[in-house]
Amino acid sequence: MKVIKDSVHDHIAVDGVARALLDTPALQRLRRISQLGTVSLVYPSANHTRFEHSLGVYHLACEALDQLGIEGVQADRITAASMLHDVGHGPFSHNVEDLIQRHTGRYHDDVHALLSDGEIGTVLHDHDLDPARIADLVAGDGEFGQLVSGELDVDRMDYLVRDAHHTGVPYGTIDHGRLVRELRFVDGELVLGAGNVQAAESLLVARALMNPTVYSHSVARISKAMLRRATETLLDADAVDAETIARMDDYELVVALRQCAASRPLVRRLDDRRLHKRAVWAEIDDVPGGIIEATHETVRRFEREIADRADVPADHVIVDVPERPSMAESTTRVLVNGEVRRLGYQSPLVDALRAAQYAQWRLGVYSPADERDRVGRAALDVLGLDIDGPLVSDVRDGLYTTLDQFTE
Amino acid sequence: MKVIKDSVHDHIAVDGVARALLDTPALQRLRRISQLGTVSLVYPSANHTRFEHSLGVYHLACEALDQLGIEGVQADRITAASMLHDVGHGPFSHNVEDLIQRHTGRYHDDVHALLSDGEIGTVLHDHDLDPARIADLVAGDGEFGQLVSGELDVDRMDYLVRDAHHTGVPYGTIDHGRLVRELRFVDGELVLGAGNVQAAESLLVARALMNPTVYSHSVARISKAMLRRATETLLDADAVDAETIARMDDYELVVALRQCAASRPLVRRLDDRRLHKRAVWAEIDDVPGGIIEATHETVRRFEREIADRADVPADHVIVDVPERPSMAESTTRVLVNGEVRRLGYQSPLVDALRAAQYAQWRLGVYSPADERDRVGRAALDVLGLDIDGPLVSDVRDGLYTTLDQFTE
Amino acid sequence: MKVIKDSVHDHIAVDGVARALLDTPALQRLRRISQLGTVSLVYPSANHTRFEHSLGVYHLACEALDQLGIEGVQADRITAASMLHDVGHGPFSHNVEDLIQRHTGRYHDDVHALLSDGEIGTVLHDHDLDPARIADLVAGDGEFGQLVSGELDVDRMDYLVRDAHHTGVPYGTIDHGRLVRELRFVDGELVLGAGNVQAAESLLVARALMNPTVYSHSVARISKAMLRRATETLLDADAVDAETIARMDDYELVVALRQCAASRPLVRRLDDRRLHKRAVWAEIDDVPGGIIEATHETVRRFEREIADRADVPADHVIVDVPERPSMAESTTRVLVNGEVRRLGYQSPLVDALRAAQYAQWRLGVYSPADERDRVGRAALDVLGLDIDGPLVSDVRDGLYTTLDQFTE
Amino acid sequence: MKVIKDSVHDHIAVDGVARALLDTPALQRLRRISQLGTVSLVYPSANHTRFEHSLGVYHLACEALDQLGIEGVQADRITAASMLHDVGHGPFSHNVEDLIQRHTGRYHDDVHALLSDGEIGTVLHDHDLDPARIADLVAGDGEFGQLVSGELDVDRMDYLVRDAHHTGVPYGTIDHGRLVRELRFVDGELVLGAGNVQAAESLLVARALMNPTVYSHSVARISKAMLRRATETLLDADAVDAETIARMDDYELVVALRQCAASRPLVRRLDDRRLHKRAVWAEIDDVPGGIIEATHETVRRFEREIADRADVPADHVIVDVPERPSMAESTTRVLVNGEVRRLGYQSPLVDALRAAQYAQWRLGVYSPADERDRVGRAALDVLGLDIDGPLVSDVRDGLYTTLDQFTE
Repeated sequence: MKVIKDSVHDHIAVDGVARALLDTPALQRLRRISQLGTVSLVYPSANHTRFEHSLGVYHLACEALDQLGIEGVQADRITAASMLHDVGHGPFSHNVEDLIQRHTGRYHDDVHALLSDGEIGTVLHDHDLDPARIADLVAGDGEFGQLVSGELDVDRMDYLVRDAHHTGVPYGTIDHGRLVRELRFVDGELVLGAGNVQAAESLLVARALMNPTVYSHSVARISKAMLRRATETLLDADAVDAETIARMDDYELVVALRQCAASRPLVRRLDDRRLHKRAVWAEIDDVPGGIIEATHETVRRFEREIADRADVPADHVIVDVPERPSMAESTTRVLVNGEVRRLGYQSPLVDALRAAQYAQWRLGVYSPADERDRVGRAALDVLGLDIDGPLVSDVRDGLYTTLDQFTE
Repeated sequence: MKVIKDSVHDHIAVDGVARALLDTPALQRLRRISQLGTVSLVYPSANHTRFEHSLGVYHLACEALDQLGIEGVQADRITAASMLHDVGHGPFSHNVEDLIQRHTGRYHDDVHALLSDGEIGTVLHDHDLDPARIADLVAGDGEFGQLVSGELDVDRMDYLVRDAHHTGVPYGTIDHGRLVRELRFVDGELVLGAGNVQAAESLLVARALMNPTVYSHSVARISKAMLRRATETLLDADAVDAETIARMDDYELVVALRQCAASRPLVRRLDDRRLHKRAVWAEIDDVPGGIIEATHETVRRFEREIADRADVPADHVIVDVPERPSMAESTTRVLVNGEVRRLGYQSPLVDALRAAQYAQWRLGVYSPADERDRVGRAALDVLGLDIDGPLVSDVRDGLYTTLDQFTE
Repeated sequence: MKVIKDSVHDHIAVDGVARALLDTPALQRLRRISQLGTVSLVYPSANHTRFEHSLGVYHLACEALDQLGIEGVQADRITAASMLHDVGHGPFSHNVEDLIQRHTGRYHDDVHALLSDGEIGTVLHDHDLDPARIADLVAGDGEFGQLVSGELDVDRMDYLVRDAHHTGVPYGTIDHGRLVRELRFVDGELVLGAGNVQAAESLLVARALMNPTVYSHSVARISKAMLRRATETLLDADAVDAETIARMDDYELVVALRQCAASRPLVRRLDDRRLHKRAVWAEIDDVPGGIIEATHETVRRFEREIADRADVPADHVIVDVPERPSMAESTTRVLVNGEVRRLGYQSPLVDALRAAQYAQWRLGVYSPADERDRVGRAALDVLGLDIDGPLVSDVRDGLYTTLDQFTE
Repeated sequence: MKVIKDSVHDHIAVDGVARALLDTPALQRLRRISQLGTVSLVYPSANHTRFEHSLGVYHLACEALDQLGIEGVQADRITAASMLHDVGHGPFSHNVEDLIQRHTGRYHDDVHALLSDGEIGTVLHDHDLDPARIADLVAGDGEFGQLVSGELDVDRMDYLVRDAHHTGVPYGTIDHGRLVRELRFVDGELVLGAGNVQAAESLLVARALMNPTVYSHSVARISKAMLRRATETLLDADAVDAETIARMDDYELVVALRQCAASRPLVRRLDDRRLHKRAVWAEIDDVPGGIIEATHETVRRFEREIADRADVPADHVIVDVPERPSMAESTTRVLVNGEVRRLGYQSPLVDALRAAQYAQWRLGVYSPADERDRVGRAALDVLGLDIDGPLVSDVRDGLYTTLDQFTE
């Protein structure tokens, strides 16, 4: 048994198949994939990695298995899945994920391949574990998949606490000890035991406060959009293909972006923190539905049109349209009066937080600071936005509420 | 200058009038008044006192004054008020406060007297400070009173963090550093600067989660009701008068309760943690409005009738009717688009949390464990409750959601 | 199983005999015995109790049993002993312990009686546990007694971390998770596994830094001496007997001290924090050996002589002679090269810390501030001290090194 | 003014010249230089960077300036120096520092150049600050240089606390708030005020415990030696010159090492954590003085001879000879009895910790696991070591005492 010191969970004991997986190159690579990507440009302490997060998820999974009395091969599968759940991540985690998927045409299905091949495949084979079943758990399929990827999964419990610890933002402090202790299976569904509506709410609230403060902080969104655009430029230049990027670590992607003339200007801006600024920051009600639903190609075309109209280089305009807000936790199940109920039914907070999320939704158009006026006006026309106040709506309604570290 | 080590704020530097106040008997007495009273029967680490809380409030007040650029005599008044804001507390803080007030007929007006007399009066006089103006600040009056007692006061910022630290419950972790830094005065109103809707929400959420988990935890409510009843018994026995109790510390009240034959049985139950149990735990919709609005005397009469009907001794029945829920923070003001707006107007969370609070409201009837059935049935009749399921409604609707440490 | 939230160890699960013991009046009484007594007059946050400490010791004992693979009746005995190890403490723990023992003539032997009688006796009997064997464990006897009271006991691991947490002083932060994990039994001796010399040293260092900063802080020593003297006055006045005091809680002792005319002046000084000051603070080399070895009665006689000569009331002079320094941890055993070695043999730190402890030793003579000169000079003569600089030796050699919160 | 959230010091306010420096590429580069290099292969959470450390040092410098009453241009120089003190670091900080210096022939003198040129030069010029004077402060020269680089510098205070926070090892927890508050200048020397011998000792102890547990952990030493050797291979292959490497960030160096065929095998071992093991781990008394004093070239020759004799490839043998132990803190000055005294004179701990450090000194010879026996025996002969027990001396004497995470 190895014992590893973790800054969040203190000592983590690693044993069995998990220990063998730990020594594979695919897992060691996660040491070089940052957990929060460009968020460190907002919160400079947020340099933690997918590796320590994977250890944390494994640790909480072990506690949950203990609590639920799951043993044997089923337990091995779940601990393996918890350790491996992020092994398919590309460099900078979620920052360029959709881009890679669009170019490779593959989404999560390559997890199967990753788990079957190479050293991971060998380790699983040696421990009599079927890669396909573990890939299913990672995808959240089946009764036990809920533990690895679902409303009450240990992934979320770890990242909320870990991201709060490393950013210094106190909002993610959930009582994970209690949540794990209260997990139950009822008729094949993972639920919280009676008396835990509030514990479930706290998980919801933690996400709702961490979202705009950390994950969707405007500066994090801008720098993420710049990184994604730089990577797209690299792909367009045929310098590297998407399959190769998918298997890079953060180090390789950054250096590749610097070595390619087309992507160099943007990545140098990121290196030096000379970030684009918001030219437009529009509320959902001011944005035509067609824009929100537009394909990636359409958005790229809009960017080119805006750049043309504003007479600036193409990579000086980035249009960033987030998806319509959703709230997975609303389906969290809690035992109430002996019945399993959905939290969205039980708690008035769910609707309120959904409304808050809707109110915080913003379409962003970004450009270098000295071109923002021109780009903003051009974007209004091209995108058909219906804004009659200032183009950056914090000023207008104040609902954008995060600490603008380093900004403007 | 004295420097005092605090487990929450680390070093607290105390100077000027605050330092002189620190050495008065009235302030030193707060070392022997627990911050959370009977909550330590639920969370055994919650043994912190009003003294350390007063130091913490003083510390945050100093930071706020710095931030707001308030100096001179006005600053001295505010630091004195922050240090003194709890000096009028009776033993066990809020646990027997209303009882003492009912018997003495005096409410907060005696703060004036406390600040004018004795060593505190002398200290204030020596520093050319008017006790009446400081008493006004403690009462939250005037522009600067908002800092000491209002929606954004430093009192709340300290107690949320301190109570979380000492109970071990993580929900009170607000970002007090940011809140203090963002305080502004706009047209005589204390507001949070632009971009802080969410910081304001986090304060609201912290209270909403701490309330049922800590402050109104069912076992804390039961033991508080037992302590209050024991104290009332002591008063009824004419053993001590209310004025005397008001100036006791926790130590004296506990010993007085043990020394009086009438109150001894109840306080011994508290000593040994043989607590009453819930015979009824009714939702607000099942309780006649008349009961909710009933005077203290009426409630006492109900208790006697229930005891009669159930054929148990009078002090075996306690009826505990909390006030209708309110939510002070909904009037917190935040700068939005250059205007001052109330949070209740700006945030969908306010209504949701108010609804949650309403749903968590419970009328309690408590009795020794072996009499709870009889007492419960008698209470139904006497109080005219409209319950058709089990009498203790957690079982029924699960909205009561705290960790029942030690209970049943 | 009960789960209790602790501010140090988070969730503590209590089960079996430990749970039954928890509900006894003797254990609940520990909620009203402060862990550090008058130390809270130096560190205002240090209001934690023997109850939460007992829970913490129980928790670490369970982890150690797990680690050592001890089960069954032996494990029950050890968990019971860990829960009960402080049950014999008088009010204010160690502050008046020696005084009570001197008056009752009984030392630790009454633990046997405490565990055999009353509800504790019943609980142990119901769980087929022999009180005598548990009392032996509490006394540190036998192989397993080392776990409860020895160089590597879980008592020390809990109190160092807990006292650091509650005072805010960072020096007690040992890695108790690792220490517990590394415990081994070798030939009937409790040792740390190979590679842990430094872990053992950290335990030693933590004590060495906490001692002068917290446990023997000069102001804590002064107020402890005042409390002890007040209690002795109470006994001399025949107001209460020592047996009764031994079973009081903090609340009762404080009120008893206030109610007795003889002890009232001193306890009022403690209440209002008008503490005596150091009239003499002498190094060990300047104190005749006879004084250091003097009996309690001799010291009392010295106090009276000093008071006579200085012409002040008898209770204005307190002579406080600590025992010669010792260092229990020097016998901590660690596996080195497959042999069990004593830390004192292995580590140069042990001798250094022993020397530091010797250098920090001070005899104190305390009196009200305005009489300290007269009392100091009188004490020099009566005690035959050989001091030629100032009488309070910090000024002289600076080795007294703690943060003098609140002092002079 | 910018306010930045830090996971150690919470909010850090950055203003004036420090703010302007923050936006220079040279400072932003520190975001991509890890604070502890290969230590993250032992403690996976230790991914913090020189950038956040620089912010922390700046923050403590501001507090120290406040405390010492230093203002104006002198204060600007010191804050600039604190922000810039690590700007000359090469990739992986200290891991490859000596190697770069040996190849460039330049040591700290290039700090002058770095501060005079580029954007930093412009910023300093704009704020009327002389780069040469700031470089002197960074080098610890002059009265105020002690604050930036000396026994009581804010650099050490930040890194001890920060490294403890991020590794999860509790030993670095010093009371930096108190240390900064107690700084004084006496006759041009930076000292701690009276009553702080113990505070000074705690700084010493923190380093003494962090050293073997973190900074010189055997696995950190092995991986650092592998990284250094890989970099040397890269230089020997003339793939990149030392000047270029000195200005790389971690990302570029890792990719460069992978792209060069000669260094690739070693860096792949680091990537996959297939680390060399200790073939020899010898105490100082068993090593001929000539080996300890040997030049780098001589050591390289030894490595080749050992590889020859053991018949393994040259890069399979690494000889790692640390410098003779020293203890800078022994000259820390504290006010004692009105005089400035050196801690080494005042405290018995200094000698003890020096002895411990001496006892922990180890010469290491590393090789792949399956070749360690052969390499170990060959190394004995070539280096003339006088060992008659096992070659890896932990087993022999247990003084090697850290938590061997991940090892063998």
